Amino acid sequence: MADRLKIGIIGAGRIGKIHIDNIARFIPQAQLTGLADIMLTAEQEAWAKGLGARIVSKDPADLLKEPEIKAIIVCSSTDTHADFTVAAAQAGKHIFCEKPIDLSVAKVKAALDAVKKAGVKLQIGFNRRFDHNFARIREYTRAGEIGDVQLIKITSRDPAPPPIAYVKVSGGIFMDMMIHDFDMARFQAGSEITEVYAAGAVLVDPEIGKAGDVDTAIVTLKFANGAIGVIDNSRKAAYGYDQRVEVFGSKGAASAENDLPNTVKLSTEKSVVAEKPLYFFLERYKQAFVDEMISFIDSVQNNKPVAVTGEDGLANMYAALAALKSVKEKRPIFIEEIKGQN
Amino acid sequence: MADRLKIGIIGAGRIGKIHIDNIARFIPQAQLTGLADIMLTAEQEAWAKGLGARIVSKDPADLLKEPEIKAIIVCSSTDTHADFTVAAAQAGKHIFCEKPIDLSVAKVKAALDAVKKAGVKLQIGFNRRFDHNFARIREYTRAGEIGDVQLIKITSRDPAPPPIAYVKVSGGIFMDMMIHDFDMARFQAGSEITEVYAAGAVLVDPEIGKAGDVDTAIVTLKFANGAIGVIDNSRKAAYGYDQRVEVFGSKGAASAENDLPNTVKLSTEKSVVAEKPLYFFLERYKQAFVDEMISFIDSVQNNKPVAVTGEDGLANMYAALAALKSVKEKRPIFIEEIKGQN
Amino acid sequence: MADRLKIGIIGAGRIGKIHIDNIARFIPQAQLTGLADIMLTAEQEAWAKGLGARIVSKDPADLLKEPEIKAIIVCSSTDTHADFTVAAAQAGKHIFCEKPIDLSVAKVKAALDAVKKAGVKLQIGFNRRFDHNFARIREYTRAGEIGDVQLIKITSRDPAPPPIAYVKVSGGIFMDMMIHDFDMARFQAGSEITEVYAAGAVLVDPEIGKAGDVDTAIVTLKFANGAIGVIDNSRKAAYGYDQRVEVFGSKGAASAENDLPNTVKLSTEKSVVAEKPLYFFLERYKQAFVDEMISFIDSVQNNKPVAVTGEDGLANMYAALAALKSVKEKRPIFIEEIKGQN
Amino acid sequence: MADRLKIGIIGAGRIGKIHIDNIARFIPQAQLTGLADIMLTAEQEAWAKGLGARIVSKDPADLLKEPEIKAIIVCSSTDTHADFTVAAAQAGKHIFCEKPIDLSVAKVKAALDAVKKAGVKLQIGFNRRFDHNFARIREYTRAGEIGDVQLIKITSRDPAPPPIAYVKVSGGIFMDMMIHDFDMARFQAGSEITEVYAAGAVLVDPEIGKAGDVDTAIVTLKFANGAIGVIDNSRKAAYGYDQRVEVFGSKGAASAENDLPNTVKLSTEKSVVAEKPLYFFLERYKQAFVDEMISFIDSVQNNKPVAVTGEDGLANMYAALAALKSVKEKRPIFIEEIKGQN
Repeated sequence: MADRLKIGIIGAGRIGKIHIDNIARFIPQAQLTGLADIMLTAEQEAWAKGLGARIVSKDPADLLKEPEIKAIIVCSSTDTHADFTVAAAQAGKHIFCEKPIDLSVAKVKAALDAVKKAGVKLQIGFNRRFDHNFARIREYTRAGEIGDVQLIKITSRDPAPPPIAYVKVSGGIFMDMMIHDFDMARFQAGSEITEVYAAGAVLVDPEIGKAGDVDTAIVTLKFANGAIGVIDNSRKAAYGYDQRVEVFGSKGAASAENDLPNTVKLSTEKSVVAEKPLYFFLERYKQAFVDEMISFIDSVQNNKPVAVTGEDGLANMYAALAALKSVKEKRPIFIEEIKGQN
Repeated sequence: MADRLKIGIIGAGRIGKIHIDNIARFIPQAQLTGLADIMLTAEQEAWAKGLGARIVSKDPADLLKEPEIKAIIVCSSTDTHADFTVAAAQAGKHIFCEKPIDLSVAKVKAALDAVKKAGVKLQIGFNRRFDHNFARIREYTRAGEIGDVQLIKITSRDPAPPPIAYVKVSGGIFMDMMIHDFDMARFQAGSEITEVYAAGAVLVDPEIGKAGDVDTAIVTLKFANGAIGVIDNSRKAAYGYDQRVEVFGSKGAASAENDLPNTVKLSTEKSVVAEKPLYFFLERYKQAFVDEMISFIDSVQNNKPVAVTGEDGLANMYAALAALKSVKEKRPIFIEEIKGQN
Repeated sequence: MADRLKIGIIGAGRIGKIHIDNIARFIPQAQLTGLADIMLTAEQEAWAKGLGARIVSKDPADLLKEPEIKAIIVCSSTDTHADFTVAAAQAGKHIFCEKPIDLSVAKVKAALDAVKKAGVKLQIGFNRRFDHNFARIREYTRAGEIGDVQLIKITSRDPAPPPIAYVKVSGGIFMDMMIHDFDMARFQAGSEITEVYAAGAVLVDPEIGKAGDVDTAIVTLKFANGAIGVIDNSRKAAYGYDQRVEVFGSKGAASAENDLPNTVKLSTEKSVVAEKPLYFFLERYKQAFVDEMISFIDSVQNNKPVAVTGEDGLANMYAALAALKSVKEKRPIFIEEIKGQN
Repeated sequence: MADRLKIGIIGAGRIGKIHIDNIARFIPQAQLTGLADIMLTAEQEAWAKGLGARIVSKDPADLLKEPEIKAIIVCSSTDTHADFTVAAAQAGKHIFCEKPIDLSVAKVKAALDAVKKAGVKLQIGFNRRFDHNFARIREYTRAGEIGDVQLIKITSRDPAPPPIAYVKVSGGIFMDMMIHDFDMARFQAGSEITEVYAAGAVLVDPEIGKAGDVDTAIVTLKFANGAIGVIDNSRKAAYGYDQRVEVFGSKGAASAENDLPNTVKLSTEKSVVAEKPLYFFLERYKQAFVDEMISFIDSVQNNKPVAVTGEDGLANMYAALAALKSVKEKRPIFIEEIKGQN
């Protein structure tokens, strides 16, 4: 086995903790060497040290200047992703960056340039590509089992809307939620989105509308390879987290249903009752979070291309901006229009 | 029991035969009294007489002038629907007319006017409202089980494209195929479509493109009640006839899967194999054809409103025309635009 | 097409009506020529004549002496089945007899002898062999898809127990209910039952126990080909009629789930709800009743072996008697023991 | 939080490694303090020390004499389970012992006596009670959702038979395989087995028959509370590990299907294909292994009754011995007979 990859993590919030935990439990080929969080607590410090982290600091620079650390995982707040990516690249570190890289196209481009110049690897945290269901669909399409892809349908609904405060800074439903589905659409199509039409509505909570966002949306996609697709999002599905994908082609279709906590059916005089889907993304994509990190570490250790590139992150962002513009201007938007404006 | 309703049928082609057969087998409250078909064969004549038809003729006028006949079923070629509807109305007969009434909005309006003036009942053959699955979804929405309707998703794919000759005269995919789905969407939404955006593609057969049509389409709908919806159509699903509906609302969702010929699963070393969907509309909507006719006869005999009105037929047609225009002009189209032009 | 087969039916109760109705609606190759019922009502008479029956009588002999009638369907009360079968055979008629032929082995044997001597065809009404699900499983086993049959599992539960009066005369759960499952087991195994062990319990209604019967049973079967099997019966499944079969072999398994009235699922905050099974045997085996009759008529018209022989009826009866004896004597019973005693 | 429970494990084979790994990854409330394996390798030693084990030895006595160690997990070869249980009890340690405790009833009883005298806790490794599906069924029955339990059906089939050498020493299919199902049956029934009838066959591999065992079996159970049940086992299901449970009662039924690696369906011109079940017990019961250990540690730390007692182990063994005797003597066997003989 190659030496364990020494990793430094910036940000010990919810997602940072998941990555640290996954590395400690499931990824012996990596080693948590450093953790930096500007709000670092004593508890976090003790925890990280218990897991073997040698450098625990409030200053991310402490990680970047440590020669032993070969890769940086960026899990800090969104507005710092781009800066840390640039800094890590300049320090010669490989980078795993949570999505989105930034809400500004210019800053994203600058970050990608820095990465390119430094010659380091950058993977973006679109973890759903690693989901057991969706990856299986992609295997089928790659193996030619469904022929030429013609239609892609993605259902993606959250169990409950985020706080209004979050909606106001997140970039809205297309940027914080559907961006995952744009990535899934491109992943499954094996082709780039060229045009977007978005129909949005405020049906869940009027406050979301007041914040300038929609909470329900149907978005039609056209792809470079001629396929067409559709994504529907809702901020609130009463029955829980609804994550389904269907890919239809000239030879057939592959479709994935939701994961359930168990397979039990209760049959009574009244009805037959089954379980609701797994609650939310932490449960649903539990293994996908592990597998994306294993994939990243494998890319670094064995010098393979990363599974989700910075360019993927940018392309997903273009789609989200196009959807936003489409809702506002009530017309289909070409991705080239968005690129031209940014 | 009321006296049996005496019925005359115009047209003994495929769909006419189904209606005749259903009345003879399953609808004792009706009586096939007359059949007219301009191409009437000796075999058809013998068959109809064997079923008790007293008047069998090549001239539909023979049915219209028969006082005993109270209702006319119009199953002739599409271009004659409107004329026979008008003639039947003027003869004071109630009318069940296969869809579409006509491809011209003006002719449809004229037919509806004639019906209104005559004070007779007119039901259009959108049989899928009577399907056991889709009717069950509507029961759930009517009972308030899913709360306010927010999203409607309809998948509707044929096992094989029709002959190119048919495509050329049918009005195209939106008019001959998706029009059923527009009706389903309006039925499930309990609201009228106000805006349509259609993304079309030629992915199944280039000849369809040469004929000026598309064979694959995703259409986004907006409804008067604020809900949004999407329909996807393909002229060719390798695995057969794919007919699914999902209605999502503030309190949950109701969704229907395909009907299968049997429930058997074969588990082997290689995989677990289940059946493909029922082959095509004759199998899939077998009982719906019976039930729409029972409903029509009940409306006539007991003076109840029909389940699918002429205005429904017109509204579905507006949606189809809007979709056609949307594909051509590559923009969303308001239904009001279509109404204004016709 | 061959001439229509002229049929006479003895007994116009529930099952007789179903057969008459099926012939009239779905089996043009047969013709209802006669109906006899010792309790014949004016309404029944009018109905039968309306369907074309020329001979309608209270005396079954009127059918037997009519040369035009080629086949007799015996749907009278169980205690008359054997006598009518013998009389029909002696009159040279082919016979379709509802199960059981009789509750006495001696009378069954005598009836089979009479049939054999007369050289007529006899089919017994074990309609479930024609069920779309169970027939599909048999197709798979016949095609070798599951290899050598090793295990057969049959679940068969009624929605509600019959009246106690019926239990007292029916021969009990093994003779009136599980006998269908013995037939299914033999049909699927492609082999004869050699040994039976029955565990019975009175868990549904103590009155059933007082009547000398059990209402819940698990019966283990051994087959001549080495396979083993199990049937479970309950007189009352709260969720309705439960009819499932699973056949397991060296290369895999084929299993059938219940049929449902529709495929709709309702997902709410509380749970995901699906439909209960189709209510009872009239709904569940609707098409099987048609198909068994088509098969019988085909056997007669084209001189093919019948699908369910009198010997099948006898073999099923042996299994039922063995189960009954097993419950009483609390030990496994060889079929040969039963044969030796009868 | 209470202090971490210091644990010593005897045996670092397949199952021992799983428990060690689970404690290290998922159970922070416990600490691996010692490991003993008479075949200890340098690699095992390094691994255990890397996980924090202070005492790593070839001599289990080293664990038993260490005061810091409060609980012993017995994962050694079956023939040593009873002795280590006795020794651990005498050393005042709580014990988690893999099943079976021993193949001799006398030795099991002696071990249980020693445990009782020492006043320590003993949990047996019947991990399936913790399975997400089967535990959910038990929740339903406990909550009264299915009323009085009447029928229990357990399907349990392995993907491939064990080596013949194993069959010869394991005690056979009832003792090494169906014993899990006896435990499940008692768990779901909430009642003890009183009578067993076993039908066995050699259908998978004649060598198994030569070794004095069967490879296919259907076993009927009677329970003290009046319920009846059936278990079917096969040493080889071509499609993989088949683990299903159904509990039927006066108010309905709860049933669990197999877990699948993903929910994807591939629909093509030929068929609709889904995944086979998860491969074998390590995949299927992965979380159950974690949860049984969490439950054991909770029992020790918070002085609660264990979930699976030594008496459960003994009762399951009686059922297995009864099944074995039933196959040999071809008659149903009362559990009391077995108890009387041991």
